[in-house]
Amino acid sequence: MAAKQAVAVIAGVGPGTGAAIAKKFASLYDVVLLARAPASYEPTAKEINEAGGSAIGFSADVQDEASVKNAFEEMSKKFPEKPLAAAIFNVGGAFFRKPFLELDSKMFRTGFETSALGAFIFAQAAIPHLLKAVGSSSLPHPPSLFFTGATAAMKGGPQMECFSPGKFAQRSLSQSLAKEFGPAGVHVSHLVVDGLIDTERTSGMMKDGPPDNKISPGAIAETYWALHQQPRSTWTWEIDIRPYVEKW
Amino acid sequence: MAAKQAVAVIAGVGPGTGAAIAKKFASLYDVVLLARAPASYEPTAKEINEAGGSAIGFSADVQDEASVKNAFEEMSKKFPEKPLAAAIFNVGGAFFRKPFLELDSKMFRTGFETSALGAFIFAQAAIPHLLKAVGSSSLPHPPSLFFTGATAAMKGGPQMECFSPGKFAQRSLSQSLAKEFGPAGVHVSHLVVDGLIDTERTSGMMKDGPPDNKISPGAIAETYWALHQQPRSTWTWEIDIRPYVEKW
Amino acid sequence: MAAKQAVAVIAGVGPGTGAAIAKKFASLYDVVLLARAPASYEPTAKEINEAGGSAIGFSADVQDEASVKNAFEEMSKKFPEKPLAAAIFNVGGAFFRKPFLELDSKMFRTGFETSALGAFIFAQAAIPHLLKAVGSSSLPHPPSLFFTGATAAMKGGPQMECFSPGKFAQRSLSQSLAKEFGPAGVHVSHLVVDGLIDTERTSGMMKDGPPDNKISPGAIAETYWALHQQPRSTWTWEIDIRPYVEKW
Amino acid sequence: MAAKQAVAVIAGVGPGTGAAIAKKFASLYDVVLLARAPASYEPTAKEINEAGGSAIGFSADVQDEASVKNAFEEMSKKFPEKPLAAAIFNVGGAFFRKPFLELDSKMFRTGFETSALGAFIFAQAAIPHLLKAVGSSSLPHPPSLFFTGATAAMKGGPQMECFSPGKFAQRSLSQSLAKEFGPAGVHVSHLVVDGLIDTERTSGMMKDGPPDNKISPGAIAETYWALHQQPRSTWTWEIDIRPYVEKW
Repeated sequence: MAAKQAVAVIAGVGPGTGAAIAKKFASLYDVVLLARAPASYEPTAKEINEAGGSAIGFSADVQDEASVKNAFEEMSKKFPEKPLAAAIFNVGGAFFRKPFLELDSKMFRTGFETSALGAFIFAQAAIPHLLKAVGSSSLPHPPSLFFTGATAAMKGGPQMECFSPGKFAQRSLSQSLAKEFGPAGVHVSHLVVDGLIDTERTSGMMKDGPPDNKISPGAIAETYWALHQQPRSTWTWEIDIRPYVEKW
Repeated sequence: MAAKQAVAVIAGVGPGTGAAIAKKFASLYDVVLLARAPASYEPTAKEINEAGGSAIGFSADVQDEASVKNAFEEMSKKFPEKPLAAAIFNVGGAFFRKPFLELDSKMFRTGFETSALGAFIFAQAAIPHLLKAVGSSSLPHPPSLFFTGATAAMKGGPQMECFSPGKFAQRSLSQSLAKEFGPAGVHVSHLVVDGLIDTERTSGMMKDGPPDNKISPGAIAETYWALHQQPRSTWTWEIDIRPYVEKW
Repeated sequence: MAAKQAVAVIAGVGPGTGAAIAKKFASLYDVVLLARAPASYEPTAKEINEAGGSAIGFSADVQDEASVKNAFEEMSKKFPEKPLAAAIFNVGGAFFRKPFLELDSKMFRTGFETSALGAFIFAQAAIPHLLKAVGSSSLPHPPSLFFTGATAAMKGGPQMECFSPGKFAQRSLSQSLAKEFGPAGVHVSHLVVDGLIDTERTSGMMKDGPPDNKISPGAIAETYWALHQQPRSTWTWEIDIRPYVEKW
Repeated sequence: MAAKQAVAVIAGVGPGTGAAIAKKFASLYDVVLLARAPASYEPTAKEINEAGGSAIGFSADVQDEASVKNAFEEMSKKFPEKPLAAAIFNVGGAFFRKPFLELDSKMFRTGFETSALGAFIFAQAAIPHLLKAVGSSSLPHPPSLFFTGATAAMKGGPQMECFSPGKFAQRSLSQSLAKEFGPAGVHVSHLVVDGLIDTERTSGMMKDGPPDNKISPGAIAETYWALHQQPRSTWTWEIDIRPYVEKW
């Protein structure tokens, strides 16, 4: 495979969506994987490198400003000349689902910190790099900042009080950033994933339903890639993704 | 004025909307005012008491679980036999408006904590009381849990990254609560106030515009009251409020 | 009852919401009732008049420009000096619910014409009168143009292809009118009624459910009245109304 | 170019989006172009055929059931063995923008008929073919029914009363169809195009603005194609598309 001209960074790369996105973006970029534990990014990094791509993981806690800052500095040291082509925030929200009166403010904080604060900190670290990359001749597509959202970003529901608010907040953040940095050349999108994702962890779920009733991580990655390829005249801010049999 | 049969609690009662709501609800209920500093609730309490109503203030920090819990216990001690007719969260969001790269994660946390965490903590303290009040013969209207929202709860914008997410999160919370506790008899509403409110602090603003271009606190209070009066067969979850000349 | 200083016109006054709104607005205004057949408005007119109010019905087909124009001319002749305080479009949509491939374009047209074209024609007839009424000393509240919407104005669903589009269109119309005529002093609102309304026709439905599971026409009318009373500094464009047990 | 295994039909193929979509889908399918006048589809058909693709145009008025039915029959005769891979409704809405009181009900009807009734008639003609195509081994992707929407499908505005309602109605229709026919294997999407499209007709507009401030028809077509390629586990119903400098 040819040497890569630019870098993509993905936060949240457990098995499933994050890994699939990383592999897709590795077709064109050096890929930097961020996760709290090396065990989360190592398998994907290994797979990409063995397939002839280029991937490296850094341990980072997206809720910790210093940790994220540090990871971006490592990235810059590792790839000093390469612009940042894409930054993707794919960190799963902490999912508490219980009767409201059994929830507590610590869970509420955690839900917020995972989905919204992490996205804020990641965006603050990424955007200076993305702005710098605008117009770079090494970039085939506009630099992109993508957020993985959820149905819970669009509507609340019973027992969702510690999960949905963080997702709403992340959606708001992505919209404000799209409006603030779009005109400067950074493509910000919010991708609403509405349904169960087909991973090893979910392999036993919904087995008695119709075929293809779980979202394919690979197909999600293709959709991220399609948005990334859009020229700045023709950008998407928001898109929903769900299985054909999903009620909504 | 006749002795009151029930209690209404309002968090966030600086001059303006909170005071106007308190005065309106004082027409039928004993009113409990929560604010961090006595200086915030004392003028309103005094005004209500001098007009023949009944108001008492407690100092409470809505972002501090113990503080809110304590205030609700004081309320119960003060009014041991009276059901809670209404709990209104009207705490103003911390408003940071700056270029995103000049904001920091501390401001983001503050924005979230003021608008969303405070609402969560307040709701957790209020809902057991409201559930207990359902069906009480002392209540002329269903017990109500109302949240004061903002335009920023509906859409983001440039430089709104530390304000809008907390408002989105509060909106989500209110929707989840409406769906979870509506069937149990608690009326949860989200009131979107879209425009500048006419207070002493804003008296110098937009003076050259058309007349009545700022929202009247008294008229907001009438709208809260109208929703509070709705019977359970005919409830509103969300309503928007704005001046006739507001662009939206 | 004192002589009325202004007029309210309501289109769509079969039993239920329309009649309840008419009775409520008759507390302050002469009421003009529009329906295709006298049998639709006569009982309500009679009831209002016997209770000491003032009501008159005119036959009009809201889908027919000439017919509506004629009814407004009759109104002006009958009440030559009185400003128009409120115009309320409450015409029920033609409700076809069938598999899409069993629907036909005639049903689609009918759904559109009932909900959207009728609203357009009614608004065109009413707005010149409402504009003329702005600022009249005979009006206690800003002149109002209200539309009764439905859940189907907010989301589509299987087999809703001949009902929901007309309701979406009516919602759009009301929003455009609010933005165009709000600054001129006309209060335009869209009231989303989400649930079964409690009328004689529906008395046998949902009887085994929880109490109060159908929307009360009288309580709807109170909500219309509350919006009508809002001063121009503090207007609502949209509000939802549903029973406490409704899923949404 | 290899013989095609399936057919795509596009209604509304003047220069711009429709032509670009047709050319993109011609990479894999025989393309059928529908327009009222041959002059509208002939240039695109010629261009596709000269480039080695396969295109044929039929005259059809999408507001006329018989005319559309006839065109689909011609299509079936022409390609008797080939499944329908995609049906795309791209008919531009009749755009009236005037003060509401200068509009009339005929314009309102026209706005509705162009955007909504046309979409309904087209969908009724296409869906039986799309349902029949589900699971066909000649289809590389799920059969798709796409609608070109507009900003006016999402919000109204002053003077938009004869344009926006039809677009709202079309959006509703597409959502109902997605919910009704998605589970049966037909991919229904609504693509919200928010901005000026870069065509010969608009070449003189917004020339003094920033570069790339008009939407590229070719890039729109790529986005349609990306959605068409999604497997049924991972479908998009709605996506927005706008230039990086567009305010929204």
